Amino acid sequence: MNFTGRAGQASCACAGGPANARMIPTADPKLRFMAIEFTLRPSLLRGAWHTERAKIRADLIMQKAARIVQARSPDDPFEDHCWKDVIPDDVIELYSNYRREVGVGPSPALVAIDLYELVYQGGAKPVPQVMKVYPNSCGEHAWAAIAPTKRLFAAARAAGLPVFYSTGDTRPQSQPKNVRATRRQGVRIDRELYAIRPEFKPRPEDVVITKVRASAFFGTPLAAHLTQLGVQSVIVCGESTSGCVRASAVDAYSLGFHVTLVEECCFDRSPLSHKVNLFDMHHKYADVLHVDEVVRHLEGLRAQA
Amino acid sequence: MNFTGRAGQASCACAGGPANARMIPTADPKLRFMAIEFTLRPSLLRGAWHTERAKIRADLIMQKAARIVQARSPDDPFEDHCWKDVIPDDVIELYSNYRREVGVGPSPALVAIDLYELVYQGGAKPVPQVMKVYPNSCGEHAWAAIAPTKRLFAAARAAGLPVFYSTGDTRPQSQPKNVRATRRQGVRIDRELYAIRPEFKPRPEDVVITKVRASAFFGTPLAAHLTQLGVQSVIVCGESTSGCVRASAVDAYSLGFHVTLVEECCFDRSPLSHKVNLFDMHHKYADVLHVDEVVRHLEGLRAQA
Amino acid sequence: MNFTGRAGQASCACAGGPANARMIPTADPKLRFMAIEFTLRPSLLRGAWHTERAKIRADLIMQKAARIVQARSPDDPFEDHCWKDVIPDDVIELYSNYRREVGVGPSPALVAIDLYELVYQGGAKPVPQVMKVYPNSCGEHAWAAIAPTKRLFAAARAAGLPVFYSTGDTRPQSQPKNVRATRRQGVRIDRELYAIRPEFKPRPEDVVITKVRASAFFGTPLAAHLTQLGVQSVIVCGESTSGCVRASAVDAYSLGFHVTLVEECCFDRSPLSHKVNLFDMHHKYADVLHVDEVVRHLEGLRAQA
Amino acid sequence: MNFTGRAGQASCACAGGPANARMIPTADPKLRFMAIEFTLRPSLLRGAWHTERAKIRADLIMQKAARIVQARSPDDPFEDHCWKDVIPDDVIELYSNYRREVGVGPSPALVAIDLYELVYQGGAKPVPQVMKVYPNSCGEHAWAAIAPTKRLFAAARAAGLPVFYSTGDTRPQSQPKNVRATRRQGVRIDRELYAIRPEFKPRPEDVVITKVRASAFFGTPLAAHLTQLGVQSVIVCGESTSGCVRASAVDAYSLGFHVTLVEECCFDRSPLSHKVNLFDMHHKYADVLHVDEVVRHLEGLRAQA
Repeated sequence: MNFTGRAGQASCACAGGPANARMIPTADPKLRFMAIEFTLRPSLLRGAWHTERAKIRADLIMQKAARIVQARSPDDPFEDHCWKDVIPDDVIELYSNYRREVGVGPSPALVAIDLYELVYQGGAKPVPQVMKVYPNSCGEHAWAAIAPTKRLFAAARAAGLPVFYSTGDTRPQSQPKNVRATRRQGVRIDRELYAIRPEFKPRPEDVVITKVRASAFFGTPLAAHLTQLGVQSVIVCGESTSGCVRASAVDAYSLGFHVTLVEECCFDRSPLSHKVNLFDMHHKYADVLHVDEVVRHLEGLRAQA
Repeated sequence: MNFTGRAGQASCACAGGPANARMIPTADPKLRFMAIEFTLRPSLLRGAWHTERAKIRADLIMQKAARIVQARSPDDPFEDHCWKDVIPDDVIELYSNYRREVGVGPSPALVAIDLYELVYQGGAKPVPQVMKVYPNSCGEHAWAAIAPTKRLFAAARAAGLPVFYSTGDTRPQSQPKNVRATRRQGVRIDRELYAIRPEFKPRPEDVVITKVRASAFFGTPLAAHLTQLGVQSVIVCGESTSGCVRASAVDAYSLGFHVTLVEECCFDRSPLSHKVNLFDMHHKYADVLHVDEVVRHLEGLRAQA
Repeated sequence: MNFTGRAGQASCACAGGPANARMIPTADPKLRFMAIEFTLRPSLLRGAWHTERAKIRADLIMQKAARIVQARSPDDPFEDHCWKDVIPDDVIELYSNYRREVGVGPSPALVAIDLYELVYQGGAKPVPQVMKVYPNSCGEHAWAAIAPTKRLFAAARAAGLPVFYSTGDTRPQSQPKNVRATRRQGVRIDRELYAIRPEFKPRPEDVVITKVRASAFFGTPLAAHLTQLGVQSVIVCGESTSGCVRASAVDAYSLGFHVTLVEECCFDRSPLSHKVNLFDMHHKYADVLHVDEVVRHLEGLRAQA
Repeated sequence: MNFTGRAGQASCACAGGPANARMIPTADPKLRFMAIEFTLRPSLLRGAWHTERAKIRADLIMQKAARIVQARSPDDPFEDHCWKDVIPDDVIELYSNYRREVGVGPSPALVAIDLYELVYQGGAKPVPQVMKVYPNSCGEHAWAAIAPTKRLFAAARAAGLPVFYSTGDTRPQSQPKNVRATRRQGVRIDRELYAIRPEFKPRPEDVVITKVRASAFFGTPLAAHLTQLGVQSVIVCGESTSGCVRASAVDAYSLGFHVTLVEECCFDRSPLSHKVNLFDMHHKYADVLHVDEVVRHLEGLRAQA
């Protein structure tokens, strides 16, 4: 499936590959991601597979391929994202050498950032309206993300992905007094407000990371848990795009994980910050994908059963 | 000195003076930072000063004061920054509860991010022009920051601050092949291009951190060095605002350091990303100050001699 | 106070030092630690004090002095510790170039590792006896440490030190199933067993770090809390010497903190492991001091009031 | 291959298992490690394999089994290690509930700690003899480890494992002056002394981590490199057992990697510290194996080709 092209290569027929082939070739020679864990050749399985696998994996993570600095066509799918209306064409042109194939990496986990009640307060109304009473709400943006995020969760669970959540640490003795995750004034530490929304209720087998800073990785054992489970990639959703999502995505990338951000499942109080931050991350640290693409990929993993 | 007001309170008269008076009061009752290290009361010096100091310090770092959610006046100095022309007033209003006093924290060090030759390539010309030959150059933005950054360095050195630099790790065996700091395509790893600009040449007593990711703290001993030297605050300059500067500033904040970003001494290939990222960081992790303010503060430290 | 000598220099008279000197000189010219925060000369307070302070501090942390590789005298106080009966003289000789002055560093916090009920189970009996029913108990060693640890806590609180505890994270969703802090089999995760002993009950202003690995720093925000409070040194007590205490002490040292281990307030199920680990740490990462020395130092801080 | 038993199960015949099974069953039903990456059933490969794999992996890492607190038989292979002559039987009994199966984990990398010239100085002579001139030498212990370590390297390279080294950072501006990895006095920072021994010379594709603290993970991107390459386990060798090897092994374990320590390929200036530290780590963080076992395992990986 060519996530860059996103042109419905659902046809990717199983062709060739040796014997019990698990490779999922497609018409497009650039396609790479689909079921990477299954593409190991028997000769790799038997023998010095580590180095080979390492190479494949490094390639997958970094996608440096050739530097594609062509003129950007108006319908370049790499830039077909929500930031189109705020990032001028000439700025996008400045980032043309970041262009590359994108996708979901191997052995993924779902990491849901801060889907807690606090940001849904006041309901699906414009932020300027709700924030007078609920200064931390993301209002309509939070509510608009519920439906796509439910789809994402369903697909992730169906594909058997490990699921991690983050939320604020509200325990009375978890930190020195007066310490908070960002510089915002006057956030009440209220346990119920940091409970995960019922739509995404954690299951007993899930892990809920509590944190005292923006990143779900900072001052938490999240990376250790992922490593211990053999996770190599994270699919990130949640809020806020310009705060905890960005801090978490940058850390995940730095830590060596492949990072996918699901555009429709991330939100922020400010659409401008949402868009510019997704733009930044897409070019530097993560593959921003549409929820349709990610769900289709996860269904693909499952469908191979 | 009221950094929020920035109204030239250079007059902040020394009342008290040495002896037992170490506070530096000013006309503005909100002023706090100036010479924080010297404000310890004798009763604190003798006796249970730790807890007191901790409280003072936590207060300084987090500035929780009251939540100031007043209507934003047109000349609110807290928002008097370069982002004014891209962040609409109604968006700024959404962040009103982040408003607070700002300044340089106690025991600062200067941290200069990635002031290497690579981003000055092609000279002081528009980025779209230079990037055809030098895809990583920040062109005129890099060059415009040289003069203010020289002022900043001079003031920091005169005040005796420890100085840290970061640059890319170009050693051939420092990382697995195909691994880079961001997802950009085709960055040549050339040792000379990662040398610090002569204008900011490190001195023998400075530390140069080499890194393989965006943040100067990630995978480096920078935080340990700062802690070992008793540093509690960082003054950050360099590039790019939306990349390594942001990643470093967020990490510094998470690690418990007070963070000051010097607006005129940070730069990016894209003015929009520069502005939105400064805006994000100012509200969540750092105090964005003008170079005049920071230099004045550092001169104040020195002038007390 | 010469912690190396430990010869009761309680007399350390206030002599000279410039002007309003706060230096606490002693008869022994090597003495350095006592009240380091107060030794800054007025000329440092005014002016380029940062670099000076950094130098002083680095010196304090690393104790470089000269390399003292003299023959070890039978009563060398540097080696006058519990390991004397298990480390042969010829082995101690191998470590002679680690010898140096020791003490409590500047701006200390108390860090109490894993003083939870689990290790006191079965009472003050020999470990082989209690472990049949309580496989994680440290028996008599745990109980023997209660009295000195109470003294340490009392002195630390009287001196106003910030106090941090660690304990196991027992929350049901805090980690993937089957993950433990060490490789020990069959540890029941029981909330009450991970409660801090009543003798050391945390106060509301204290911080209790919950962890999933051996080190109190790993996967926790402890270092960030310490940095935010301006802490530069840690005084460590608790258990087990060869497990969580060692892992925490090594991390604290790596992070740039000065580390003091209080010999009588650390314990282990195995005296041999206790002794060899204290020996290792004393020579490589920390200053192992007797509780008398540490209490005296803390009383000194307080007595200056 | 039953590493616990170590009873030459070299016969482990390839017997069925489902479909194109690559499982390597043995006579001993407890055997598990061998070629774990290849045991995924087709039903796992197709479908919700992630959760399954996560479970398998967590199980592998944490040595689940039941708690085996039987009386220790005199020939218990779990304790058949170099520490037998220094750890009394009654102490070993205290650790009986740590007993479990051991082995090499999945997707391993070789991590060679500090195999630099400094510790070989003076030749294969007793430490007390060489240390008068070369205070950092491990003398005969260093030299005795050369042959087994060459075997380990050969097997690791033949099996295609990624190879990582650590050494001290000798660059003049890599850290504040007077900062060292441990508290030892008077270590000259000499570039040639921190070069890797010719017997283990790094190849161009290897990574050499330079560090300023004991652990190869602290303040370095080592964990990120391993994650990026898909490594899940580390095989550790080098020196010193009680210093950098231990600090690195504890960190690796905390970070979620399975850790194997190769007994004959680790060394220390002091045999007592060597033995007690291996004992500590074997029970808490790592599987201490004999070089024969590890080489046989690596040959097994290779032989499957």
